[in-house]
Amino acid sequence: MAVVHASSSICSPFRSAPTVSRDLRTFSSPCIAAATLLRRGLRCSSVCRPGKCFASSDRIHPRIAASSAPVMEPFRPEVASRVFTSVEVDLGNRSYPIYIGSGLLDEPDLLQRHVAGKRVLVVTNSTIAPLYLDRVVEALRHGNPEIYVEKVILPDGEKYKNMETLMKVFDKAIESRMDRRCTFVALGGGVIGDMCGFAAAAYVRGVNFIQIPTTLMAQVDSSVGGKTGINHPLAKNMIGAFYQPQCVLVDTDTLKTLPDRELASGIAEVIKYGLIRDAKFFEWQEKNMQAMLARDPNALAYAIKRSCENKAEVVSLDEKESGLRATLNLGHTFGHAIEASFGYGKWLHGEAIAAGMVMVADMSYRLGWVDSSIVERVLNIIQKANLPTAPPQMMTVELFKSTMAVDKKVADGLLRLILLKGPLGSCVFTGEYDRKVLDDTLHSFCKS
Amino acid sequence: MAVVHASSSICSPFRSAPTVSRDLRTFSSPCIAAATLLRRGLRCSSVCRPGKCFASSDRIHPRIAASSAPVMEPFRPEVASRVFTSVEVDLGNRSYPIYIGSGLLDEPDLLQRHVAGKRVLVVTNSTIAPLYLDRVVEALRHGNPEIYVEKVILPDGEKYKNMETLMKVFDKAIESRMDRRCTFVALGGGVIGDMCGFAAAAYVRGVNFIQIPTTLMAQVDSSVGGKTGINHPLAKNMIGAFYQPQCVLVDTDTLKTLPDRELASGIAEVIKYGLIRDAKFFEWQEKNMQAMLARDPNALAYAIKRSCENKAEVVSLDEKESGLRATLNLGHTFGHAIEASFGYGKWLHGEAIAAGMVMVADMSYRLGWVDSSIVERVLNIIQKANLPTAPPQMMTVELFKSTMAVDKKVADGLLRLILLKGPLGSCVFTGEYDRKVLDDTLHSFCKS
Repeated sequence: MAVVHASSSICSPFRSAPTVSRDLRTFSSPCIAAATLLRRGLRCSSVCRPGKCFASSDRIHPRIAASSAPVMEPFRPEVASRVFTSVEVDLGNRSYPIYIGSGLLDEPDLLQRHVAGKRVLVVTNSTIAPLYLDRVVEALRHGNPEIYVEKVILPDGEKYKNMETLMKVFDKAIESRMDRRCTFVALGGGVIGDMCGFAAAAYVRGVNFIQIPTTLMAQVDSSVGGKTGINHPLAKNMIGAFYQPQCVLVDTDTLKTLPDRELASGIAEVIKYGLIRDAKFFEWQEKNMQAMLARDPNALAYAIKRSCENKAEVVSLDEKESGLRATLNLGHTFGHAIEASFGYGKWLHGEAIAAGMVMVADMSYRLGWVDSSIVERVLNIIQKANLPTAPPQMMTVELFKSTMAVDKKVADGLLRLILLKGPLGSCVFTGEYDRKVLDDTLHSFCKS
Repeated sequence: MAVVHASSSICSPFRSAPTVSRDLRTFSSPCIAAATLLRRGLRCSSVCRPGKCFASSDRIHPRIAASSAPVMEPFRPEVASRVFTSVEVDLGNRSYPIYIGSGLLDEPDLLQRHVAGKRVLVVTNSTIAPLYLDRVVEALRHGNPEIYVEKVILPDGEKYKNMETLMKVFDKAIESRMDRRCTFVALGGGVIGDMCGFAAAAYVRGVNFIQIPTTLMAQVDSSVGGKTGINHPLAKNMIGAFYQPQCVLVDTDTLKTLPDRELASGIAEVIKYGLIRDAKFFEWQEKNMQAMLARDPNALAYAIKRSCENKAEVVSLDEKESGLRATLNLGHTFGHAIEASFGYGKWLHGEAIAAGMVMVADMSYRLGWVDSSIVERVLNIIQKANLPTAPPQMMTVELFKSTMAVDKKVADGLLRLILLKGPLGSCVFTGEYDRKVLDDTLHSFCKS
């Protein structure tokens, strides 16, 4: 935790720069800066110009490491655009870096260093393909004439996250003779990442896999942590695998083409990290919500980095979700009930969990676990983000209850929830709460 | 290696019993025998009466451990039927035991100790269900009123090992509200084991899984080692996962209902273990082939145990098939070409690889890597087992070559083969052989 908080203060572009960040600015080469930080005992996985260097010493302290030269150097934009930050997800021999920065799609070295064999299959959808596919293929091929790149373009949308669409990936992989040493590249949002990741996990029992998330939701949540899978007609995400990528490459420029609602949906997950474990990050968001909504690249890069650091730490500690990792689902039990009852796609995922987080805050307050100021701050920040603060009017107590009964967090018949408890940034995952209070919350948010 | 050879000599029912086995006979309680063996520094994972005890000390030396009270005590059949042997597969925190013995389906404790939650889904097929399903359900429920057991009966046959049939398992699991703590039980041959295993790997990203193999092929090969998956219309086993069970339970009585051809098919894999790494086991087979074909329970129990020990050791050393594990595919490259070209199901898997092993012996001899006596012994033992010693007449050199070009062991365009080299029981996995010799072997076994 100390490390994460330290780097949080190092990297914030919106607060007075502490000593370490001032130190960083004095170096002409970010690599030297990284090396110096390492010598001082700080954990810095990489502060590099793509293609120029990559500190191998970053593996010395692989826990959760980050720095953010670009967001600290707004006064040198021509350099900032070629400099990226990196967050390391620590999972032993399955550890991998998340690269975050502007213009990363145009940096062949970053991608190519994670492609082991000579065959690559890029999996994308019909919305993203015209925007970014050519650039990714070019980055893979640049100065690399031996590589063979194939593409499969899937229809866009959650409703295609099913076995039938997944089979199209396998069909293409077999037709184009992808072998055990090939690499699958997911280029798109959460649906593409989940499907391509599961395909990579299952194809000849597992091949290399790279994530290039192009939505804020995927950049801060679904592309980090190795959860992959598809939906079953009767329930979401029921079929899948825990499968870690070789790297995640976040080009913040891709957010320029993201619709406003999708941007806000991603911000819901950003808010979640503050609520469950990072009060300082939540405070930063309260001050910088407008900058994020205005797509200030520095604000977005910082929000992504801080979210990935939080998620990476949780996943490192609990990869297979035996407890701690469940806290990443704050608001999701109510949110999933909304999505399932209202119909998938009517509300975006982040919209549903935004309402869910307001309900969680309400229930936590009714239990006496948080004070009213926290409820207010949750409500305020979600309003600021233009996200819903209550479920849709059609939701009834009965609809909530019937969907929540089949939640994946039910164990031996008992529904466990993630609830806020204590000061800002603290939560619990528990089945030990007063059932009547859950009822009270449901009734207060539903007309019937 | 030393351990495996030691237990091989301890357990053989067909050779003079060495000192240790005589020691064992003198104990009234097999548990005491096990403890004594442990004190003497021998590795014995369990020699127990089901439900009575289970030596926790077996984890002291988890490598490859086995003993075989039943095959050593033919003079006390009423006890022998309730005593089993166990082979431990050592994969760190994914280690698991293989129980081998007569009447194990009627031992509730053995199964129940590996069921964590309260919900079980038994996956079987239409051939096996009428024979054994009720007994397995009864074993799960016996004295265990809280347990909820559901069943799904799939059509029998390799041609149903596909995504469509797999979805039936997911449908049933979701309909019957199987949760994260549930257990899937595979009751059947290799197809059921592969499909149920992959379903368990993918259902809510992984649930508990128990294998009850009912064919010799599954008992000695496919149910050990964690390879699960389904076929794609264009290629076998292309979609799957490495996924280890909680335990494998081999009731040798199930072989009584196995057709002769299926029995011989399983024996082909038994022969393979002798050829790739266990000369003594090969010699034992040469002497005891008739006993195996006559379904002598002691001979079969020993053959299964020795095969599982060999496979367990290979898998422990190389779970994800980076090299050593590939040697388990001796004869399989030729064999798969036969299956794919001749049509799946016309020849059983073991029949195809029997012919493949004869071809491998021929090619190894032409390379000068083995002497002619080994070629002869391979031919003889395969004849004795009533297995084919050459591919079907329709096979041409071209058919072999075109199928072998898409073998999973092709890496960057080079076909690697498992070939015999040196004395009996030695092999290599290599791409470095004279291509002309491969051609010579193909031409000598094909008319055109």
